[in-house]
This record gives sequence, C-alpha cells and structure tokens, in this order.
Amino acid sequence: MNNGELMATLKEQGSRIDAVMEKDLAIVESPLLAKIIRHAIFQGGKRIRPLLTLLAASLVGPPPDDTARLAISFEYLHAASLLHDDVIDHATLRRGAKTANTIWGMEPVILAGDYLHAHAMALASEVGGPTAMALIGRATAAMVESEFMQMHNASEILIAEEKYFQVLMGKTAALIAAACEAGIAHNHGSAEQRLAMRTYGTNLGLAFQIVDDLLDYLGDPAKTGKAVGNDFQEGKMTLPLIKTLERANTEDREVLIGLLKATPQERSRRLATAQELIGKYQGFALARAQAESLLAEALAGLAIFGETAAKEPLTGLAHYVLSRDK
Amino acid sequence: MNNGELMATLKEQGSRIDAVMEKDLAIVESPLLAKIIRHAIFQGGKRIRPLLTLLAASLVGPPPDDTARLAISFEYLHAASLLHDDVIDHATLRRGAKTANTIWGMEPVILAGDYLHAHAMALASEVGGPTAMALIGRATAAMVESEFMQMHNASEILIAEEKYFQVLMGKTAALIAAACEAGIAHNHGSAEQRLAMRTYGTNLGLAFQIVDDLLDYLGDPAKTGKAVGNDFQEGKMTLPLIKTLERANTEDREVLIGLLKATPQERSRRLATAQELIGKYQGFALARAQAESLLAEALAGLAIFGETAAKEPLTGLAHYVLSRDK
Repeated sequence: MNNGELMATLKEQGSRIDAVMEKDLAIVESPLLAKIIRHAIFQGGKRIRPLLTLLAASLVGPPPDDTARLAISFEYLHAASLLHDDVIDHATLRRGAKTANTIWGMEPVILAGDYLHAHAMALASEVGGPTAMALIGRATAAMVESEFMQMHNASEILIAEEKYFQVLMGKTAALIAAACEAGIAHNHGSAEQRLAMRTYGTNLGLAFQIVDDLLDYLGDPAKTGKAVGNDFQEGKMTLPLIKTLERANTEDREVLIGLLKATPQERSRRLATAQELIGKYQGFALARAQAESLLAEALAGLAIFGETAAKEPLTGLAHYVLSRDK
Repeated sequence: MNNGELMATLKEQGSRIDAVMEKDLAIVESPLLAKIIRHAIFQGGKRIRPLLTLLAASLVGPPPDDTARLAISFEYLHAASLLHDDVIDHATLRRGAKTANTIWGMEPVILAGDYLHAHAMALASEVGGPTAMALIGRATAAMVESEFMQMHNASEILIAEEKYFQVLMGKTAALIAAACEAGIAHNHGSAEQRLAMRTYGTNLGLAFQIVDDLLDYLGDPAKTGKAVGNDFQEGKMTLPLIKTLERANTEDREVLIGLLKATPQERSRRLATAQELIGKYQGFALARAQAESLLAEALAGLAIFGETAAKEPLTGLAHYVLSRDK
C-alpha cells in the first residue's frame, strides 16, 4: 500500500468514524456543552486511535458491528485530554484554530473535558466490558502520572533516555497501545495477539514522537508550518539532544549545558551551534535509528496474524511515520 | 436510632471506608499526585456516598466483601468534582482548609481530578461491572449538564421551581442516587428495590440542599460557621426565594426583583427586608414542607425491604437532614 492508497483508506475510515461520533453525540443536551465538544472533536484530528481499534479488530476477523462505538471512545479520551491540556497551558491555538478555552473560557472547557472523559469511559464499558475498561483505566492513569513526571523533570537539564521514554509512554503511547489492544480483545483475539498489537501501538506512538523531535530541528517550516528549533528554544530535552549529551566530550557538553541554562533568546540565537553539535555526535541519526528499530519490532510482531489485508494499512502507517516531513 | 447512635455508626463505617481508600490509593506513583489526592480525600468529608452504597447493599442481605471497594469509587468521583469545582471557582477555602488549587496551582489539580475520575470509573467497572458503570455514566453526565444549566440560568432573575430542581438533581442528587442504587444492584436486588433506594438517594440529596438554603437565611452563624444571607447577597435563586416570588403581590415582587438587580452590597444591607418578605409569603415554611415531604416519600419507599437493622441508619440520616442546624 503506497502513501496515496493509505491516505485514501484513512480518509474513508475517518469519515465513517466521524459519522458514528455525530450520531453518538446527539445525547448531549446543553447547547454550549455540545458546541465545545464538537469544536474539540470536529476541528481536525486524524482519528488515529479509533482507526487503530478498527484495524486491530479486523486483524482477527470480521469485526463486530459495535467495534466503531468502542473505537470512538479512544478519540473522546484523546479530545478530553487535549481540552484540559490547553486550559493548563493557556494555549490559544490548536490545529490552526482558536482553542476552546480561548473562545469560551476555562470554566465550561474543564467541564466539557470531564463530560467527554466520563462519557468515553461509560461507552467503552458498555461496548467493551471490563476488559476495555481495565485497558483504559491503566492508560489514563499512565497519562496523568507522566504529566507529573514531566513537571518533576522540567527543572532538570540532564534527563536520561529512560526518563524521556517513560514520559512519552504515558503521554502518547499508552492510549494508542490501549486503542490497539482493545480492538483485538473486542474481537476475541488471543493474549499473544493482544500483546503483539499492544507493542505495535506503543512503538508507533514512540516513533511518531521521535520523528516529531527530529522535525523540530530539521523540518522545512514551509511543510511543517512550525518554526525550526522550537524545542531547543524552550529548553526541551528531546531525544537528539539527550543522545548528544550522553556522547559529547567535556568541552562540547559544557557548551550545550551552558546554552540550556541560558535564556530562550540566547538559545534561539545559537540554534545553529546546537544543530552542529547534535550532528557531530550523530544525535539525529541515532534518534532516527531508534525510531526505525521500534517500528521494525512493531511490524515483526504482526507476523502472527498471517497474511491479511488488514495488515496493509498498519504497515503503511509505520512507513508513513518514518517518511513524514510535516 | 437517635442522633448520637447514628453519628457513632457513621463514624465507625467512615473509618472503615477511609482504611479501604488508604489501601487502594497506594497505587498512585507520583508523590505530588498522591499528596493532592490525599488532601482532596482526607481533609474532612462525611463519606455519605460510600456509606449509602454499603447501607443499600445491606438492605438486601449481607453485602459481598468487595462492596466497600465499589463504595469508595463514589467518594472519589465526589472528590474529583470538588477539585475541578474549586479550580473553576478560584475557591481558596474548603472545610476550613486551603484548597488544593491554592496550595499547588491549577495545573496539577486539574490533572489530579482527571486521575481520580478515571480511577473511580475503572474501579467501579472492575467491582460493579457494566451496571455500576451505566449508573455512574448517567450520574456524571447529569452533573456536567446541570453545571451548564446553572451557567445558563445565572443571568436569570426569575427561575421556575422546576429549573431549580433540575439543577439540584444533577449537582447533588444524581451521584447520591447512583451510590444508593449501585449498592442494591451489587447485592443483586430487584428492579423495584433499586428504584426505591434510588428515590431515597435522590430525595435525601434534594432535601439536604433545601435545608442548606434555609440555613443560609435562618442559621446561627455560631453553629453553621457561615455568615447569614450569603446566598441572597450573591443573588442566588434558592427555594425560599423562588417560592416567595411565585406568591408575592406585585408590589412585594417589585421590591425583591429590585434588590436582585441591585449590587451585592445593597442586597447585604437590605437582607432583613428579604427575610421579612420571604417570611410573609411562607417561603421558609413551604421550602421546609417540601424537604419533609421528599424525605417522607424516601422513607415510605423503604417499606419493601421489610424489617431490617440496615434501615435504621437510613431513617436516622433522613431525620438528621431535617434537624441539622449546621
């Protein structure tokens, strides 16, 4: 499946998922609550999580009709966490549009996040039973724990790779892994199949974030829509930088640490120095190699599903994550 | 069961519930997250919701051992909603102590509320299955919907009794009713028994709030710990005032509406006028009569459980709600 075919498949499945959400959200009574939820959900987003639930279920066999309703609970959980994140960060823009908190203020947006969160869990329980709920319970706990870990790490300049991955696991990978595993479980897959798809989801999520880290230093602003070097300017410890600090000689290490202790303006001005040092110690290449190896492991695990058409979009997604330039 | 005996029973059961929560909360990893959650839960609170789950289960027969674990999920949901409420209201004090948002700021407190919320639902699903989850899903949706209804009503001076009760249903009664019904369901009670206990919970919650409204106008500050007339000063439409506006002649109605359109300072200065008019139209007596009738209905419904010791604290609670002066 080439990128064009993959995108067509994703778009088609995405529209189906949107239709299921449209129908489901009719239960919201308050007009303002409905507006905020619709803004959070239909203002873009690639529906990756529900897509993975549907694809995972198809790996085992024809999925039960209600799989799409289980799938959308993962999009709801994702949207609920973005609503609260934007309140917490006082974010004004997301996907090129004003954030809900900018339009309606903090109060109704916290509550709308709570509603979506509770509704997602009730829906997952109704359709997916205790198994889906246990998966979601673990994923949401990991999401919050990782935010606390990140707050705790924020003041540290030297972060071990292990901590970086721990935060990423909770922040992105946990919910994607749960969406994958829930699809298998819902179609009565085996424990081995659940583990394989869980690993696929975890590794896809981790690789996606690593490529994000790379694009931040190396991307083309005309394509990514973001300025180069944002992460470094904010002093964010991402994988290319962590790998470099692990390998640099004392002198180069001192230069980088000096910059990390400097002001954002100073870091912005000296971005080329950082890029050069990361290049010198293969920080970019090593990070990319790690993303590649995570995805190779993810795809190798899918072998147990034999030859099935449902595997193609999953393989396509893994290649897309590595090749994307925006 | 007199008030003293009731309080002793509540205290004993409350300690048992606290011990179950202590044990359960050991799973929280981040030290800061654990601190915020412990502050939200162990800084007072009467454990009414989990107590009702336990008592409800006992009405049907000896409750299963895991009932206490189902019960604490209702205390968690309550605590999670208070955490978010205090962020939204920028509240600085609760139960005489600094609020979590005052101590730790908005960011970790929103996240701690999310954690507790997700954990409560996962726990309820694990112990109480789809039945408990459906009850909780409906209750949490009603809680958020009622907050939106309240925001919408906030600008209205004339609120019909029906709207007042709709808001109260979601704000307080829905979760209490779910805690009651979940106890019956967990011990395999009949649909009729579930409805009776649900009604008990709903009516207990409504009556509790009506008595709150009355204490705000008529309470003894030395006992309640609150100044008299807070609600009126804030222009809050509570039951005594609503009943009065429904019944007052044109002239008296104009006086009250004039005050409701005035400044909080003016309302504070003219509190005696409001109290006098509410008294003249039996606003206090009618509100109290409604609380009494709600509780009488709640207790009458318990007849289907026959003679059982578990009924005594439920009867005691209903009488306590009416007789309380703080």
